[in-house]
Amino acid sequence: MSRRRTERILVGKRSGGELVRAPDELIVEEPLEIRLDGAVVTTTMRTPGHDFELAAGLCRTDGLLADAEVRGISYCADRSALENGFNVVDVDTGGTAPPAPGRMAPTTSSCGLCGSVSIDALLDRLAPLTRPPAFDLDLLIAVTVDVRRQQVLFDRTGAVHAAAAFTGEGEIVVVREDVGRHNAVDKVVGRLLLDDRLLAGGLGLFVSGRASFEMVAKAWAGGFSAVVAVSAPTALAVATARRAGLTLAGFVRGEQITIYAPPP
Amino acid sequence: MSRRRTERILVGKRSGGELVRAPDELIVEEPLEIRLDGAVVTTTMRTPGHDFELAAGLCRTDGLLADAEVRGISYCADRSALENGFNVVDVDTGGTAPPAPGRMAPTTSSCGLCGSVSIDALLDRLAPLTRPPAFDLDLLIAVTVDVRRQQVLFDRTGAVHAAAAFTGEGEIVVVREDVGRHNAVDKVVGRLLLDDRLLAGGLGLFVSGRASFEMVAKAWAGGFSAVVAVSAPTALAVATARRAGLTLAGFVRGEQITIYAPPP
Repeated sequence: MSRRRTERILVGKRSGGELVRAPDELIVEEPLEIRLDGAVVTTTMRTPGHDFELAAGLCRTDGLLADAEVRGISYCADRSALENGFNVVDVDTGGTAPPAPGRMAPTTSSCGLCGSVSIDALLDRLAPLTRPPAFDLDLLIAVTVDVRRQQVLFDRTGAVHAAAAFTGEGEIVVVREDVGRHNAVDKVVGRLLLDDRLLAGGLGLFVSGRASFEMVAKAWAGGFSAVVAVSAPTALAVATARRAGLTLAGFVRGEQITIYAPPP
Repeated sequence: MSRRRTERILVGKRSGGELVRAPDELIVEEPLEIRLDGAVVTTTMRTPGHDFELAAGLCRTDGLLADAEVRGISYCADRSALENGFNVVDVDTGGTAPPAPGRMAPTTSSCGLCGSVSIDALLDRLAPLTRPPAFDLDLLIAVTVDVRRQQVLFDRTGAVHAAAAFTGEGEIVVVREDVGRHNAVDKVVGRLLLDDRLLAGGLGLFVSGRASFEMVAKAWAGGFSAVVAVSAPTALAVATARRAGLTLAGFVRGEQITIYAPPP
């Protein structure tokens, strides 16, 4: 059981000359089993920390909560006693969330059909956004610079993603880092959920890497008005953002930025 | 139904001045439902192309095949007729693979305990490698440069990962690009499987991003002797490689390279 988010080990490093022994700092990756009202939902490889946010956020963005309210979140120590108690989290809705068989499948496994059907599946539970506020392009660029300064685990390990929520004035509301891209987003959404700030209309979601279908789907489920990704989106992510009425910006490089949605 | 791997759309681009309409090329992301002997195994968001390799590789690296031989792989058109037929693939072992209930869970959900237990779960089905050949450090660096030149989809879209298999002489055996890191690795493993080149003892596995636990687990399952990642590994990836007897190199930057396993 470790609550550490980084770990120091000895490695062999070479930079031109001989291979030398040197200390290195690595990002920690541990499995977290997430349960909803006692039933296992999924196990995700995550960086420890903000586990309650991750569990609540994942249940929310994957549509598992429906309209149910989160009454409590706790670590479970019922498997190998306390030893692994910090790697199992239960989200309690007092049984008001839909029972397991009727649950919406997570977006990853919601369909084996095609991209447009994946979007249709989201439309079954999510309404398109109504005219979200336009974010200033310079503000979106400034946000990526600001969040980068707060990616402390990335600076130390070089192997961790970040997600953040920001306001239309460019204020960074919350930043989360995680070895998994989706986890970082779920931790941000979970924080907003626990702070009773969802739907996040008027807020933007920052992601440090690319924007895939799932990232846009999670942003839509969280009610964000915009997504800005440091790298490029996928074709399905763009199609989803356009259908959702979400602003999607990406490929931010210095003064350069691309707006993928709405269509130009 | 689309077999395209990239898609061109109009976007708004700004580089200093005004936002202008411009064409852009995006990587395609579509769901692929993978079945084993007719039973659904998983649905993964992937870039179309090399789907049979992906399906076979995923079944192999996740331990679902056990010792069963792949007799055939085919697209299924039984859901919405031909329309979605290219997004469902069945791997046929003639029923010799373990039936669904007895199947090994994929590594992602193999345990909700802790990292060391995740490694133990792999040790239940995978033997540590016996003294793999040492790869020359300059060769590992040269491989990353060579594969980079072959990442044609990355050059066009900036949003796609690559994996490759290479020999101890630095020959690139196969390169695959996919919107998903794991898919790229599974496509490489699947190609080797279909070519009857597994276990891949003596071969190295290249991954374009970071090395996570799952990437190392897949390399181990494929019998590779080494993994080289362009970016950093996680702590659990290093622990897994050390336990497996795999060479793990990463953080390749020019002449710089770090050896994480074996321990220095």
